[in-house]
Amino acid sequence: MFQSIHSYIARSVQLSPAEIAIVNENLEYRLVPKKTILLAANNVCNFEAYVVKGCIREYFIDPDGVELTLEFAVEDWWVSDITSFEHQTNSKMYIETLEDCELLMLSRESKERLLQEVPKLERMFRLMIQRHLSVVQNRLFKSVSYSAMDKYLEFVKRYPSIPQRVPQHYIASYLGITPEFLSKLRTRQFKKVL
Amino acid sequence: MFQSIHSYIARSVQLSPAEIAIVNENLEYRLVPKKTILLAANNVCNFEAYVVKGCIREYFIDPDGVELTLEFAVEDWWVSDITSFEHQTNSKMYIETLEDCELLMLSRESKERLLQEVPKLERMFRLMIQRHLSVVQNRLFKSVSYSAMDKYLEFVKRYPSIPQRVPQHYIASYLGITPEFLSKLRTRQFKKVL
Repeated sequence: MFQSIHSYIARSVQLSPAEIAIVNENLEYRLVPKKTILLAANNVCNFEAYVVKGCIREYFIDPDGVELTLEFAVEDWWVSDITSFEHQTNSKMYIETLEDCELLMLSRESKERLLQEVPKLERMFRLMIQRHLSVVQNRLFKSVSYSAMDKYLEFVKRYPSIPQRVPQHYIASYLGITPEFLSKLRTRQFKKVL
Repeated sequence: MFQSIHSYIARSVQLSPAEIAIVNENLEYRLVPKKTILLAANNVCNFEAYVVKGCIREYFIDPDGVELTLEFAVEDWWVSDITSFEHQTNSKMYIETLEDCELLMLSRESKERLLQEVPKLERMFRLMIQRHLSVVQNRLFKSVSYSAMDKYLEFVKRYPSIPQRVPQHYIASYLGITPEFLSKLRTRQFKKVL
């Protein structure tokens, strides 16, 4: 249950057994069925969740009612709306499980307590947020500079397991193209491989 | 010279006079004339810079040769390509001073030394990166969900001093609209205010 997060932490900081015990105490293990809305727009995000197993989607609904997928999270990723979580402001996004998930959840109180008792973890959270920033910044680059086919290839490279795991219309929504166009891209790519 | 960064740090962590001395030793004060390219695409970003005074622009050039402004940084902000800086990979962006600037620069070596000697600063950097992530994430939201007028009003609210300080075509490039369209928006907004 805690094995993967311990390896995750060990990649940025070394903790003593006592500190690891504090980590475990502050994380809440939750089994969440697929299609659960963990966060809905206009609510405050009260968690950061580490994905032990499963797949999660972050999306928002634009003023025309169109769903736009912001991010996918799979094993060994964190998911949250950090702005809403830290400032206790209403979120604009939805966070939904796409598969049955095993999550380790941190509430705001448990995160504060954890950082007070194990300040070394500031580093882990900093590096995690930095990686997250890279992903979002890259997405901003891509959304203006890549052709649809480049976007799709980049997507398959970053998330190799996702095309088999999530409905195609979610991937289309992530790429900002229609499902029909995505299907054309996939056929074109398949022909190239043969 | 160090006064504003000391206040900036004090908002997230309390340092002893000895620790403040270490901060000062690791920051390099630089006066940079306007129109200086601090980072060019296809180079590794070797700094994080705290803006004591001045205004800086981050942009990239898309495959069609169009300049797209990613961010502006003014007093009390940090500027860097953190992905390139941390992973020593080539950057896709340009960072350019728009005004004469006073900067406090951290190299990768000095940041590492600083964090080793004053680990408390991990928290400050985490909070800084989180704010940055909020800005970039918001920009991603806006780039797909806002009308041009909403984008402009949001921009003026976030950066009240910038419309007077930087050339209009940079603002247009940030908003992803033509300078002519921006000028129309400004006239429309001006009429509303009267």
